[in-house]
Amino acid sequence: RSHTLAVLPGDGVGPEVTRAALTVLDAAQERFGFSIERTEVPLGADHYLSTGELLPNDTVTALAHHDAILFGAIGSPRVAPGILERGIILALRGAMRQAINLRPVRLYPGVPTPISGLTPDRCDLVIVRENTEGAYVAQGSTVHRGTPAQVAVQESVNTWYAVERAVDFAYRLASVRRKRLTLCHKTNVLVEAGKLWTAVMESVGERYPDVETDYVHVDAMCMHLPVSPERFDVVVTDNLFGDIVTDLGAVLQGGLGVAASGNLNIDGTGTSMFEPIHGSAPDIAGRGWANPAGACLSLSLLLGHLGEGEAAAAVEAATAAVLAGMPAMAGKGMGASTSELGERIARAVTTG
Amino acid sequence: RSHTLAVLPGDGVGPEVTRAALTVLDAAQERFGFSIERTEVPLGADHYLSTGELLPNDTVTALAHHDAILFGAIGSPRVAPGILERGIILALRGAMRQAINLRPVRLYPGVPTPISGLTPDRCDLVIVRENTEGAYVAQGSTVHRGTPAQVAVQESVNTWYAVERAVDFAYRLASVRRKRLTLCHKTNVLVEAGKLWTAVMESVGERYPDVETDYVHVDAMCMHLPVSPERFDVVVTDNLFGDIVTDLGAVLQGGLGVAASGNLNIDGTGTSMFEPIHGSAPDIAGRGWANPAGACLSLSLLLGHLGEGEAAAAVEAATAAVLAGMPAMAGKGMGASTSELGERIARAVTTG
Ligand SMILES: CC(C)[C@H](C(=O)O)[C@@H](O)C(=O)O
Ligand SMILES: CC(C)[C@H](C(=O)O)[C@@H](O)C(=O)O
Repeated sequence: RSHTLAVLPGDGVGPEVTRAALTVLDAAQERFGFSIERTEVPLGADHYLSTGELLPNDTVTALAHHDAILFGAIGSPRVAPGILERGIILALRGAMRQAINLRPVRLYPGVPTPISGLTPDRCDLVIVRENTEGAYVAQGSTVHRGTPAQVAVQESVNTWYAVERAVDFAYRLASVRRKRLTLCHKTNVLVEAGKLWTAVMESVGERYPDVETDYVHVDAMCMHLPVSPERFDVVVTDNLFGDIVTDLGAVLQGGLGVAASGNLNIDGTGTSMFEPIHGSAPDIAGRGWANPAGACLSLSLLLGHLGEGEAAAAVEAATAAVLAGMPAMAGKGMGASTSELGERIARAVTTG
Repeated sequence: RSHTLAVLPGDGVGPEVTRAALTVLDAAQERFGFSIERTEVPLGADHYLSTGELLPNDTVTALAHHDAILFGAIGSPRVAPGILERGIILALRGAMRQAINLRPVRLYPGVPTPISGLTPDRCDLVIVRENTEGAYVAQGSTVHRGTPAQVAVQESVNTWYAVERAVDFAYRLASVRRKRLTLCHKTNVLVEAGKLWTAVMESVGERYPDVETDYVHVDAMCMHLPVSPERFDVVVTDNLFGDIVTDLGAVLQGGLGVAASGNLNIDGTGTSMFEPIHGSAPDIAGRGWANPAGACLSLSLLLGHLGEGEAAAAVEAATAAVLAGMPAMAGKGMGASTSELGERIARAVTTG
């Protein structure tokens, strides 16, 4: 088996964690006998500052010809906030039609969680975030800027098309897991969008009679998720609420250092992208203080997506094994550098 | 000193916790020598189902003539979700021009928090939520309902007028606390609304040179708030983000049973309303299993608002003292019924 991979290390700690993940990928290829042709793509602050380009058309075309994208992190204090996020991350999600943002929330044994008494058996859920629309569609409009009469309007656009594909994906996932799907929204206030999501849940649900469903408001979700994550198997939600509750999910897992995500194209019209959910953390870049687990668990999702299921499982297990021995999940206290940890995970993949 | 109070017990556990709070109010009046004339107003599911009325104009007029409103909770499985919330709670916030939703997030000593290692000295912040606009303005619009072409649009409207009054309130509060104000938003995605909030923060900040400010994205807030609440003194945010992060704040405090809120009119054009943040909890209504602390701490906020500062402090201290001795924060395990707990808090107010 052979695959093509575009690697976007990005800024700050992005290149460090990506390098660690690629070491792990080497080990997985070796052990499971597949090949991956890698192309490194220089997107991010440096590229933007030296060329003025965020996401050139040529790059989009090139990425579209790869089987998957491994993404590090972008963002730099040298670029105004929002520019790189919108111009690269959100632009890629759109250009590659990455309909789904997939966020497993899993507490691995031995990982310190800030939630007291939380155990791994009680924390194994997946959040399915609609990844293309909602409040993320547009820049909105402003009138009377700079005066006391200023008004800024933001729109959230929700289509049956995109909501259905997210909800169908979530049902399908639930049907091969514990068969429970929770819609998270704010239907009592966002009435029209809420009706759309509710109608789609019911309509798609007819195709999945064995999946039980329920509904939780996004505010209530922030109360339930930390204390009763076992209530949830698969949670489906819109783009903005997904952004918020997945970061809360990462807290349960032991923080940003551990959390992985996939931006999935599910209709063959683009390339899926996998990224740790942490940012570029410019304050600690270059010191070897970034936890490579998020990048390695994202690599595991990537391998699963490429059909390399055994390798995916091995990378996840190896990462979990190394996490279990770490004294802290980020920073100086990790007890080993980013690259050393990458090598440990790689060795664990090799020895199985 | 004499004041007028409208009491809206509402549905489910609302009347139980309100009764407990009124017992505490009796004790406070007795000890601190002020009088409060109380008018009970029957709003909620029963009233709606028997009369078809949500919030009649006469009621609005009557409420406007009171000095404050003490609210229990509304909501019932007999009424479709959203009807009572929008028709009563949100309608009251609008009619009474309750510009600010004030949510202290304070961990009282002895209260079990699900965040491991969190101590009361590290958890004392106030969230100031804009309470009248943003995503809460309108019902949105839908086209092609019931077809695969359906599109639902929701708007968020943000005015300099309302954002400034919330931000100014927050600065003023910060200036008499630890002098730190954090804006919580999602400026990298909600660009126009984000620019408005940022511009208002800067503009109003000129009047409060001694208040330090910073900015945290709402998703990052959900990561920081549980593990580093000591980072925050006053947090100001929009209506929707406020709805979400205040419920997360309640988790830190030991859950819904303990959390209080005020909906403040700050320009003399309406009446402020104080409510525990828990809902009507119909599943446990009538059993004495609801924690009256949220209602009593809301009463404390109310007394402060009426200028009864000593009474406010005494009610808060009494509630904290009783909380410290409770084996659990809600349900059967509280060790005493709602009304017994109310009496204990009242006695603690009396004895000081
Ligand atoms: C960087 C930002 C635009 C992005 C988002 O809001 O989706 C990030 O928070 C995420 O969750 O991937
Ligand atoms: C009941 C609901 C409309 C309300 C809101 O969303 O504001 C509630 O969640 C709150 O926070 O007071």
